[in-house]
Amino acid sequence: MTPLKLVARQHLDQATVVTINEELKVGDREIIVMAGPCAVESKELLLAAAYAVKEGGARVLRGGAFKPRTSPYAFQGLMEEGLKLLAETRRETGLPVVTEVMDTRDLELVAEYADILQIGSRNMQNFALLKEAGRIGKPILLKRGLAATIEEWLLAAEYIMSQGNDQIILCERGIRTFETATRNTLDLSAVAVVKEVSHLPVIVDPSHATGRWQLVAAMAKGAIAAGADGLLIEVHPNPAEALCDGPQSLTPANFHKLMQDLQKIAQAIGREIAI
Amino acid sequence: MTPLKLVARQHLDQATVVTINEELKVGDREIIVMAGPCAVESKELLLAAAYAVKEGGARVLRGGAFKPRTSPYAFQGLMEEGLKLLAETRRETGLPVVTEVMDTRDLELVAEYADILQIGSRNMQNFALLKEAGRIGKPILLKRGLAATIEEWLLAAEYIMSQGNDQIILCERGIRTFETATRNTLDLSAVAVVKEVSHLPVIVDPSHATGRWQLVAAMAKGAIAAGADGLLIEVHPNPAEALCDGPQSLTPANFHKLMQDLQKIAQAIGREIAI
Amino acid sequence: MTPLKLVARQHLDQATVVTINEELKVGDREIIVMAGPCAVESKELLLAAAYAVKEGGARVLRGGAFKPRTSPYAFQGLMEEGLKLLAETRRETGLPVVTEVMDTRDLELVAEYADILQIGSRNMQNFALLKEAGRIGKPILLKRGLAATIEEWLLAAEYIMSQGNDQIILCERGIRTFETATRNTLDLSAVAVVKEVSHLPVIVDPSHATGRWQLVAAMAKGAIAAGADGLLIEVHPNPAEALCDGPQSLTPANFHKLMQDLQKIAQAIGREIAI
Amino acid sequence: MTPLKLVARQHLDQATVVTINEELKVGDREIIVMAGPCAVESKELLLAAAYAVKEGGARVLRGGAFKPRTSPYAFQGLMEEGLKLLAETRRETGLPVVTEVMDTRDLELVAEYADILQIGSRNMQNFALLKEAGRIGKPILLKRGLAATIEEWLLAAEYIMSQGNDQIILCERGIRTFETATRNTLDLSAVAVVKEVSHLPVIVDPSHATGRWQLVAAMAKGAIAAGADGLLIEVHPNPAEALCDGPQSLTPANFHKLMQDLQKIAQAIGREIAI
Repeated sequence: MTPLKLVARQHLDQATVVTINEELKVGDREIIVMAGPCAVESKELLLAAAYAVKEGGARVLRGGAFKPRTSPYAFQGLMEEGLKLLAETRRETGLPVVTEVMDTRDLELVAEYADILQIGSRNMQNFALLKEAGRIGKPILLKRGLAATIEEWLLAAEYIMSQGNDQIILCERGIRTFETATRNTLDLSAVAVVKEVSHLPVIVDPSHATGRWQLVAAMAKGAIAAGADGLLIEVHPNPAEALCDGPQSLTPANFHKLMQDLQKIAQAIGREIAI
Repeated sequence: MTPLKLVARQHLDQATVVTINEELKVGDREIIVMAGPCAVESKELLLAAAYAVKEGGARVLRGGAFKPRTSPYAFQGLMEEGLKLLAETRRETGLPVVTEVMDTRDLELVAEYADILQIGSRNMQNFALLKEAGRIGKPILLKRGLAATIEEWLLAAEYIMSQGNDQIILCERGIRTFETATRNTLDLSAVAVVKEVSHLPVIVDPSHATGRWQLVAAMAKGAIAAGADGLLIEVHPNPAEALCDGPQSLTPANFHKLMQDLQKIAQAIGREIAI
Repeated sequence: MTPLKLVARQHLDQATVVTINEELKVGDREIIVMAGPCAVESKELLLAAAYAVKEGGARVLRGGAFKPRTSPYAFQGLMEEGLKLLAETRRETGLPVVTEVMDTRDLELVAEYADILQIGSRNMQNFALLKEAGRIGKPILLKRGLAATIEEWLLAAEYIMSQGNDQIILCERGIRTFETATRNTLDLSAVAVVKEVSHLPVIVDPSHATGRWQLVAAMAKGAIAAGADGLLIEVHPNPAEALCDGPQSLTPANFHKLMQDLQKIAQAIGREIAI
Repeated sequence: MTPLKLVARQHLDQATVVTINEELKVGDREIIVMAGPCAVESKELLLAAAYAVKEGGARVLRGGAFKPRTSPYAFQGLMEEGLKLLAETRRETGLPVVTEVMDTRDLELVAEYADILQIGSRNMQNFALLKEAGRIGKPILLKRGLAATIEEWLLAAEYIMSQGNDQIILCERGIRTFETATRNTLDLSAVAVVKEVSHLPVIVDPSHATGRWQLVAAMAKGAIAAGADGLLIEVHPNPAEALCDGPQSLTPANFHKLMQDLQKIAQAIGREIAI
């Protein structure tokens, strides 16, 4: 992995800690859980989801306003309206917000509302977007591309960091393989490799990785034990009626149960889930 | 493949023929070869490459002005300056130009200079870019994503077509697999599948697929025999000194030899290489 | 590819030509087509298939007596009875026979009846079987494993050759990838790579590679144009009622049509289909 | 996953517990660690390794006498001599032994010496071997094939169980993907899927999965947290001089440290590492 410079472990004496709203720290001893619905659907649902995940111990609310959908005929998200709902919900619940940006032209708009800007798998090598993300003063959640090697993923982070922004959270979310029992194949060894070669924090998204809520708890536990600095989990008040990714969303009750289990594992490895 | 609508074979009585500059036809009986250097490097090199490929029978000049590079420290292309060189070279040689666009903000600029706009593998699911490409009155060359299923690739074309632009040329360029003897694994069966389920023309890029010039001729021949409507081939006057992708570039001499071989195969299947 | 020794191009001055029954040559200028049903089902069906493929120009009859099936509850083949039917059919039609061997204990039995012993994808790294195949005086058809690199495949051939048998025909039959539109992904670049690094002949099985008869013709043509020394094609008198792999089997009529098309492509590259 | 019968969860009221030497239980509340060198190299090294892993808490000694090697020129194992050394070492240390069998002809011989017979990745679809393994009265450790879907892996177990042997331990050991930072990609979600659809116990081999000892601890922890019933870990008294797989072998000291960490995670999920 020679071409890594700024994101390489050798570049820094210590692990990078990403600070959200001058308060929440990702990459420190405490493990951060981000949770919420796949997409922002309505004010009521978002608020219900936000309170549910907050109660369970999530410290960041996730929710998509701009949705990358395989088909142009699928629900594309509420866009700016969705961003406003996220901001309102943050005001009411106090939870900072992570949401995706898909186009350089939307970056400033999304940055106005979001606390963390997500660059999704499909845009991991949208180099124009990466460069712009490097010029903005907000933390970036950089998901690994569907078929990106760990080296390519870190070089995508290098694009951001080379423009002056070191507030980068990496997110492993499964890679594409021949296996069809899961939506993607969660590559937890990527967590260990990132820890070895980079100083950046890395979290795991077990929801997109598996595509089935029944598998989310096992993979969330595995991720914490393997050293992840956080999790990104889909939770929906009513998964059966979700406009997207219902089959991989936990109910609030399952999420609460999971958080308790995760705390025990975090403690077993000398860390703590921030709640 | 149910979600396909506009790009589905059922939608049209006949194959879509993409017309370049009201003259050149892609998707008709004649097979079109597009060739040139990976990147626009200088006026002299581009012109030399253009004359070389024209002499060999290429009908379109390829050359990147905006280059998607894995590392931020690699040559990123000459950008607008490169576009101008492409336009100059077109004036001198008469060859229409295909070049990549990577960002919605650059689309109009690139469209000013290019005859065909290429959307590369890494941006195959940059949905904002696809939508804008659908609103512009120019042919689009849509490369298959590194790890995109054929269905996802066709749905990316559906994004473009749903915005009103049906001038789409699909381009198979290899997918990512475990095999390391080649840069990617050229999936020629994708050509046959596309012909079966869609009315859009499909061409093949054996240069990026194999990553080694020694394998380009065999794969170009295979592509024509398998039914491809064209080829996209990297040719450089001096591959050893190319700023990018030298190892996969043919010399002009090898390109000329290849074109003669391809003509025989085209005729064997009742087609013709347009020269 | 340093570890190759006996199978490496450097080891020999010329391409290895595999001779079947002191008569048929694989790896020479003439291209050999092997065809027949997936499995030996009955004397009548096998004979009908054999005459049909012979009439079309096939020079070798394929047919499985021992069948490697994913489920223990699927038809496992007629075993020794199937071998006897193959031998009878050879007597009547004059076509030499290629059939699979799956277990070291069956090797001598299969060798008694078959002219070419096939080692299938699933056994490509059954090293005990490879070693025994190296000690027997019969040509071996060695299929590439589902997820074998080209180097591993050639090293499997090295196992055979290191025991004294150089009569090895390699067979590319598709590798496992994320794509689901085809049963496997046919890697035609493997043909070109093998030709570059080894002296052994290589053929292509478009039937198993694609899994759908509709795609077989395009891939067979692509294979010949890319330089394959032969083809292995499934043909069944009545694909709809085949006990295995019906969806990928050609009818005799489609096979005859294909053979005529292949002859033209063979001639375009200066070769000939042996008929 | 419809074709599963005997191995399906629906077939049994409870999880299958595999019993080794009427004493050790795999698939029960206690988690079993199997450890030792890749290959049996000499009496001294094997004994040293055995005492080292026993001291760390391993309950089964692993070690290959028959080695499946990609190249015929690599060390192929000590074969029967290796089996005898394993049996001697068992006598001295009391540790039961797991070792690989690669050929139907060797099955009885290996069964004479081994307590658990391992069927390796490359032989996961060696159906003759699976059937014989089903007829022998010993536990079978069935590794997942390099490119086997979970369904195919379970159907391989179905082959064994359909012959009367239900003493099957599944072992996830990484699948082949495009990622090259690790030897294979460990698919921990396979553990969760197996637990969902089958009653068979499943363990994880983090050594072969990652190929680098630096990553073994993280993946071993992840595996336990995700629900694995055991681990298979390579430990060598002197990894730098191992005849095979040195780079993925732990030193005894690292193994002891790991076992202490694993115990805490096991307890966090309500289980216990058997020591």
